[in-house]
Amino acid sequence: MIKINQNYQKLPGSYLFSTIARKVREYEMAHPDKIIIRLGIGDVTIPIAPEIIRVLHQAVDEMGKAETFKGYAPDLGYSFLRKTISEKDFQERGCRIDADEIFISDGAKCDCGNIQEIFSTDCRVAVCDPVYPVYVDSNVMAGRTGDYDMSLGRFRDVIYMPCTGETGFVPQLPEEVPDLIYLCFPNNPTGAVMKKSQLQEWVDYANEKGSVILYDAAYEAYISEEDIPHSIYECSGARTCAIEIRSFSKTAGFTGLRLGFTVIPKNLTADGVRLWDLWARRHGTKYNGAPYIIQRAGEAVYTPEGRRQIEEQISWYMENARIISDGLRSAGYEVSGGINAPYIWLKTPGSMTSWEFFDLLLEEANVVGTPGSGFGPEGEGYFRLTAFGNREKTIEAIRRIRDL
Amino acid sequence: MIKINQNYQKLPGSYLFSTIARKVREYEMAHPDKIIIRLGIGDVTIPIAPEIIRVLHQAVDEMGKAETFKGYAPDLGYSFLRKTISEKDFQERGCRIDADEIFISDGAKCDCGNIQEIFSTDCRVAVCDPVYPVYVDSNVMAGRTGDYDMSLGRFRDVIYMPCTGETGFVPQLPEEVPDLIYLCFPNNPTGAVMKKSQLQEWVDYANEKGSVILYDAAYEAYISEEDIPHSIYECSGARTCAIEIRSFSKTAGFTGLRLGFTVIPKNLTADGVRLWDLWARRHGTKYNGAPYIIQRAGEAVYTPEGRRQIEEQISWYMENARIISDGLRSAGYEVSGGINAPYIWLKTPGSMTSWEFFDLLLEEANVVGTPGSGFGPEGEGYFRLTAFGNREKTIEAIRRIRDL
Repeated sequence: MIKINQNYQKLPGSYLFSTIARKVREYEMAHPDKIIIRLGIGDVTIPIAPEIIRVLHQAVDEMGKAETFKGYAPDLGYSFLRKTISEKDFQERGCRIDADEIFISDGAKCDCGNIQEIFSTDCRVAVCDPVYPVYVDSNVMAGRTGDYDMSLGRFRDVIYMPCTGETGFVPQLPEEVPDLIYLCFPNNPTGAVMKKSQLQEWVDYANEKGSVILYDAAYEAYISEEDIPHSIYECSGARTCAIEIRSFSKTAGFTGLRLGFTVIPKNLTADGVRLWDLWARRHGTKYNGAPYIIQRAGEAVYTPEGRRQIEEQISWYMENARIISDGLRSAGYEVSGGINAPYIWLKTPGSMTSWEFFDLLLEEANVVGTPGSGFGPEGEGYFRLTAFGNREKTIEAIRRIRDL
Repeated sequence: MIKINQNYQKLPGSYLFSTIARKVREYEMAHPDKIIIRLGIGDVTIPIAPEIIRVLHQAVDEMGKAETFKGYAPDLGYSFLRKTISEKDFQERGCRIDADEIFISDGAKCDCGNIQEIFSTDCRVAVCDPVYPVYVDSNVMAGRTGDYDMSLGRFRDVIYMPCTGETGFVPQLPEEVPDLIYLCFPNNPTGAVMKKSQLQEWVDYANEKGSVILYDAAYEAYISEEDIPHSIYECSGARTCAIEIRSFSKTAGFTGLRLGFTVIPKNLTADGVRLWDLWARRHGTKYNGAPYIIQRAGEAVYTPEGRRQIEEQISWYMENARIISDGLRSAGYEVSGGINAPYIWLKTPGSMTSWEFFDLLLEEANVVGTPGSGFGPEGEGYFRLTAFGNREKTIEAIRRIRDL
């Protein structure tokens, strides 16, 4: 008689964004005359840049001709893309990362979710609180987290690292030593960043304790200030303790094209085994490569013309972020993020809970955001808005919130 | 101190196709004048059909315009594609499968590798021998197989079901009852098929024992004979015991585009839980949808024009299969497969092992195939050739083998 993976049963009922979608749907049905503005989910809205569209067409044509048709991609990605990434994202920043250390995938979410597989189920996992739910949920499914404690809103065996206003929404080194440390900077959901000296402390800590850092740098393209590392490999010693995960989703609007990559330095080992070998084996066994045409599109992101066009898009989103931050601040809100990240993190007014503020915004301003408590207990009393909206609607949303 | 998933260490050293690639590379370097013909790996060679290319261009254009741009795809796939699949692949064959029971993915290999996650690590797994390596290896990684027994060439805790010439390369119901049964028909590597009455026995067995069948139907488009089921849901009772996995790779040449799907009927349960819910949760947590443009390309496979063009491609490959089968038979080889599948399975001459025949073919005929023993101990003494080659080269390869 077959049995299921009981760990799945430990996951709390409904996914945050499903609950939001349901609430919005119900409100819309009850008030069909209202025009809702969505600044909740972190999905991009600007179409794919013209240069990337041109390259996509070219690659589609290649797939239609016998001389240029491409079947199975190399397991770990096409070398044209791996080489470009290693040069442009790493070597040009002084990071010693080889093409061969880049694993192309169909997105950072998949990599973030799957990477835990190569580690023992005994590993102690540390995450920030608040946190992107995939880090925790994928470890729940693997059996690393113990049961969910409803009263705490936390899993018993996970090390949660509070990221509060007092510490600039950056975690402090945990007292109990974790094996696997998830860090995401620029951060989703808070928009906070770590300075290079701060991240260096984590690298030193991980090397000293024998931990591995999973560094999610999906938002690095939004960094506007100096001294904020774009890659963990800017820190010395990161090659022996860190895996980095990157995405094209927010960098170049690829949420619907699907492309990302993971970096595993060849000298990163555990139990005397190279993690590179384990991840390569996983890719070879359970994955079959990202589509050729999408990998060509990814390459176009790094050409001078592609780069110029996506930088324009990022500037456009960051102008939205400025409008949201400034507007909220002038209305008396306490606001952070939005400078090196497309996320604005605001304190709810008075003693309102995150969900109370969600309901208020939905019902009185017809604006949808994301309740901070959905990302963890320390997110309670906070609220996330994203800079990915259309300009007019973003301005209108802020006007409505100010008028509340 | 972090520890790795030690199950990975149980995997036998080198992946079959890597060993083949190395041997071919070494031969080529030693004999740069020889022209090698590859009938080994099952990758397609005919370019994507014109109608699908047309639709791909159209979808790329949509991604470049604000009005039609698509961000994140729905977790489980676009409804236009799920609906088309449920109608054309299932309802038109009399199978009661709803659009909502189709999970779109980036390929059958990923689904075959990942599906085991939703089951308990205590499950007993049954596979055919010979077998597509992904079924076994993904269960090794999850810890279901026990250690590898070098002398047997098998994992201790896996139930192997021999598929030999005596039974037409079809397995018999196992004595020890498995929880999870992997079946792939038309079969890779043997090209064998099950009649509907034979498959019905497996469905009845699974329902009686409380097992789940993972039915890999990646090659169903190659079925040419009557009474061979294209889907396990043609059998009565399959909705309560079977998951089916499908691919666009061999149906429409999508090995480099990446598209597949998994079917989980909503009334398939284990431990009182719907497997549909578990797989939906996995998709939502660790996956982010197949690219929009690829899903549109998938839809085009089902239009009258798309269908006509891919059927032409399949006929072309099957003519290769006929050339290989007939040629080998007339040269005295014992041959099976190649009628309802793009794989030809031949008995090696005399008492030659699969690898001895591989070396002979490589060195004396400069033809590359796949040693049957690479798929499991019962594949010893067999050899796989594929029908995916170019016509002239296929004819030339057979000529060379006959001249041996």
